[in-house]
Amino acid sequence: MAHIKLPDGIPGIRGPMMFRPETAKPLNELVDVLLRGPHTLSPGERELIATYVSAQNDCRYCQTIHGAIAAHHLDGNEELVSNVKCDPEHAEISPKLKALLAIAGKVQRSGRNVTAQDVERARVQGASDLEIHDTVLIAAVFCMCNRYVDGLATWAPDDPDFYRQRAAMVATNGYVASTITLAAAK
Amino acid sequence: MAHIKLPDGIPGIRGPMMFRPETAKPLNELVDVLLRGPHTLSPGERELIATYVSAQNDCRYCQTIHGAIAAHHLDGNEELVSNVKCDPEHAEISPKLKALLAIAGKVQRSGRNVTAQDVERARVQGASDLEIHDTVLIAAVFCMCNRYVDGLATWAPDDPDFYRQRAAMVATNGYVASTITLAAAK
Repeated sequence: MAHIKLPDGIPGIRGPMMFRPETAKPLNELVDVLLRGPHTLSPGERELIATYVSAQNDCRYCQTIHGAIAAHHLDGNEELVSNVKCDPEHAEISPKLKALLAIAGKVQRSGRNVTAQDVERARVQGASDLEIHDTVLIAAVFCMCNRYVDGLATWAPDDPDFYRQRAAMVATNGYVASTITLAAAK
Repeated sequence: MAHIKLPDGIPGIRGPMMFRPETAKPLNELVDVLLRGPHTLSPGERELIATYVSAQNDCRYCQTIHGAIAAHHLDGNEELVSNVKCDPEHAEISPKLKALLAIAGKVQRSGRNVTAQDVERARVQGASDLEIHDTVLIAAVFCMCNRYVDGLATWAPDDPDFYRQRAAMVATNGYVASTITLAAAK
């Protein structure tokens, strides 16, 4: 049971977002810009960063929903998502994304853990300043979202199909739109 | 030196915010709603939560600037801010704020650390669902900001007067306004 009274049957971050729409609005705008805005990293790559950090934080809802969204963007390749969560250095992803995930993993523990060598490794693999910036911020944002979701003890459904269906909707409509739809259906 | 090329002489989170205004906008809106919006917790109390979490994360820029803003709101009482950072249970603050800071401290480590007992303690001291929600989200937001600031190795000035002067400006104009001013001065 959640620590505060949240709308019934609304999973994960969406319960507290309905409870507090004033903070939900900028939160969703931030995630839309970072994960879905125009970018040299694909939406699938950015969702993999979000998924990896959420897995490192052991947040069941976030790692499952963002893993499903990542898989949706990556031709349904759920095995790749699982491999990235378990062992990104040996997953079938680009050397640049491996270097960015290594930075994200450092940020998950503490921003101060990121070294000049970590950043240099990403640069050698072709990462731009914007890609490095956004990797740090995506990792930081999911350290926030994971704590928000788990700190209020929100509900996470067990059925993997729930996440697959929800992923298809988010991949099509985005984060801001999904909250607006939710509020309208209330 | 910062890990990416940031504007010269701009300290802390404001450097990456100038680098990436698309994400700065929702970030500042989120912080304005949480720390300065209409609330049953005073701005000083909310800034104390932000300061405490930033100190737990050992983020020098965030704990110093938000500590200075908290002190500005609390009649310049820098000693109280220092006491809250070191030992909130024995600081001269309300029992309700102590209970909320205990929740914030749990969130700083992991959302999953927050227990029903932590929440019950806050309720017994009169905390509402909104106050508990916002405490969790403020703590989570500063776990993000601290990682953003330190993950990019941004510059933090040494002079305490820098933070006092900046605090007075933010306390008057807010977070969104200060970024707009910054962009205009560029």
